Amino acid sequence: MLCGMFIKFLTTGGTIDKIYFDDLSQFEVGESQVQHILAEGLVDLDFEVVALMHKDSLEVTDEDRRRLHEYIEQDHARRYVITHGTDTMPETAETLRDLEGRTIVLTGALTPARFRQTDAVFNVGMAVATAQTASPGVYIAMSGQVFEAGAVRKNRAENRFESIDRN
Amino acid sequence: MLCGMFIKFLTTGGTIDKIYFDDLSQFEVGESQVQHILAEGLVDLDFEVVALMHKDSLEVTDEDRRRLHEYIEQDHARRYVITHGTDTMPETAETLRDLEGRTIVLTGALTPARFRQTDAVFNVGMAVATAQTASPGVYIAMSGQVFEAGAVRKNRAENRFESIDRN
Amino acid sequence: MLCGMFIKFLTTGGTIDKIYFDDLSQFEVGESQVQHILAEGLVDLDFEVVALMHKDSLEVTDEDRRRLHEYIEQDHARRYVITHGTDTMPETAETLRDLEGRTIVLTGALTPARFRQTDAVFNVGMAVATAQTASPGVYIAMSGQVFEAGAVRKNRAENRFESIDRN
Amino acid sequence: MLCGMFIKFLTTGGTIDKIYFDDLSQFEVGESQVQHILAEGLVDLDFEVVALMHKDSLEVTDEDRRRLHEYIEQDHARRYVITHGTDTMPETAETLRDLEGRTIVLTGALTPARFRQTDAVFNVGMAVATAQTASPGVYIAMSGQVFEAGAVRKNRAENRFESIDRN
Repeated sequence: MLCGMFIKFLTTGGTIDKIYFDDLSQFEVGESQVQHILAEGLVDLDFEVVALMHKDSLEVTDEDRRRLHEYIEQDHARRYVITHGTDTMPETAETLRDLEGRTIVLTGALTPARFRQTDAVFNVGMAVATAQTASPGVYIAMSGQVFEAGAVRKNRAENRFESIDRN
Repeated sequence: MLCGMFIKFLTTGGTIDKIYFDDLSQFEVGESQVQHILAEGLVDLDFEVVALMHKDSLEVTDEDRRRLHEYIEQDHARRYVITHGTDTMPETAETLRDLEGRTIVLTGALTPARFRQTDAVFNVGMAVATAQTASPGVYIAMSGQVFEAGAVRKNRAENRFESIDRN
Repeated sequence: MLCGMFIKFLTTGGTIDKIYFDDLSQFEVGESQVQHILAEGLVDLDFEVVALMHKDSLEVTDEDRRRLHEYIEQDHARRYVITHGTDTMPETAETLRDLEGRTIVLTGALTPARFRQTDAVFNVGMAVATAQTASPGVYIAMSGQVFEAGAVRKNRAENRFESIDRN
Repeated sequence: MLCGMFIKFLTTGGTIDKIYFDDLSQFEVGESQVQHILAEGLVDLDFEVVALMHKDSLEVTDEDRRRLHEYIEQDHARRYVITHGTDTMPETAETLRDLEGRTIVLTGALTPARFRQTDAVFNVGMAVATAQTASPGVYIAMSGQVFEAGAVRKNRAENRFESIDRN
């Protein structure tokens, strides 16, 4: 491992962390799954996981985005992976673009990590690699691609992320 | 998706693709799992998967490495993900370093993709992102890290990949 | 296989078949998973699966129970496995107790079958065995046990099924 | 739970418990998975798990079968589930038929329990139910069916268990 290689994971909620509560007959954001994913991925680098909130991204407010921005601004890490709900991931990514000298990668999942078939593990893998290889800036790793913040949107009808420059 | 974003997957075998044959009471390299991994990861970019061989990497020969080198040399893609056994992955990576103008990422798994708990999915996710973000060159994506070819080895005792510059 | 060994599966919905709809940010009963479970269990006996309804068991009505009772009454199979939501499984089981000459086993799951960790597979396995070994009557197979209808309840606080005769 | 409902699990090895050792590039019987299966199945009855041996069933000897017979003979439980390799499961079942007053169910798996797709969980579910519902005797729960010992064989060509009385 290169000296200094450290990734800070900030978890905010989203579908990736949703679990089913049988007694409520409903589906809520639970404890973050990112640590299990990193363990299963046999990840051997220094990292820390901080749970900032447990929200569906339709409920993430501008105030939440300010808290996230402030956290990173006052923190000393240079590489971040942020797990976030998919619906407003592009919006949150946009608000972080002015943070300099850091590689920030947002990811999440269209199916909860606790499901047998899920994109969660693949996406976190993408984000962890991007945090190490991409030049400072803000990115979204979803749908098998790495997008730059500001040039990506979620296509809700087709349930995928795509470049805004796409025909 | 940026125009031109295309990844060619070359599969060579390795633990990632091992399956259990009950009638033989043994474990052999089977059909590549990479397509299932990409489907489960909801990957939405252009790609092609080519199975070059189905070998345990302890059985990969210099001739096999020449075939792999030649395949890439004569091919037109610019981004490659090669799934490979872990034991000689660093050696194979070394032989590809002279290929210019291409981003080549080798990955595999320490546990077969068909297992319930496996690093396979995370690793392929890392490789797919690296193929898109890293500058042309040869890389290994294992143990949660992206290494440059020539600066990485497999630590067999600890069952992980590490930088050669590491104490 | 003993001549005549045939099991008819009747699916009614319940947690076992719940899936997550990302666009609705909610969890609904989807297509029955029982066929996938039987395939994965390498089940090699004659069976048929009939989907009678797709309801959360809190929404199962007396009219629904009458339809289920009538279906079995007019049908010719001798062994039934009914997948059902857990909340009112004991109530539905009670209404079938007068059906003679048939072994009827109700089961379901406290966690959806599509989850990585789920009791669904184990429970269907229990039910398939019970349908073959128990004498004619109505049973519930949940929480690792086989209960007789009328002598079992769901303990919601502890999220498990238990005998009514229990202290 | 009916007073007295207790199941003793005896594990002997077999495919159900095979794991892959990357450093050996081979597949060996590991620690028994039955406890994980029971936990995932949300099993809520009294049980105990005893590991008698860790053998591929082609290596189970007559001496091993004598030890197994003796263990049960001197033990006080009335219901047993024995996990065992599939190749000689019928032979082992035969040697236990003279043990009176006990319900003994042998099961195993054609694919290891640690695999993502496996019959292991379904089979243990079948065995746990059979141990509770079948009258004293020796049974095999495989391929979705419950067979009586002495009337079943493993069809190696088709990789399934079948009744010996079958045409």
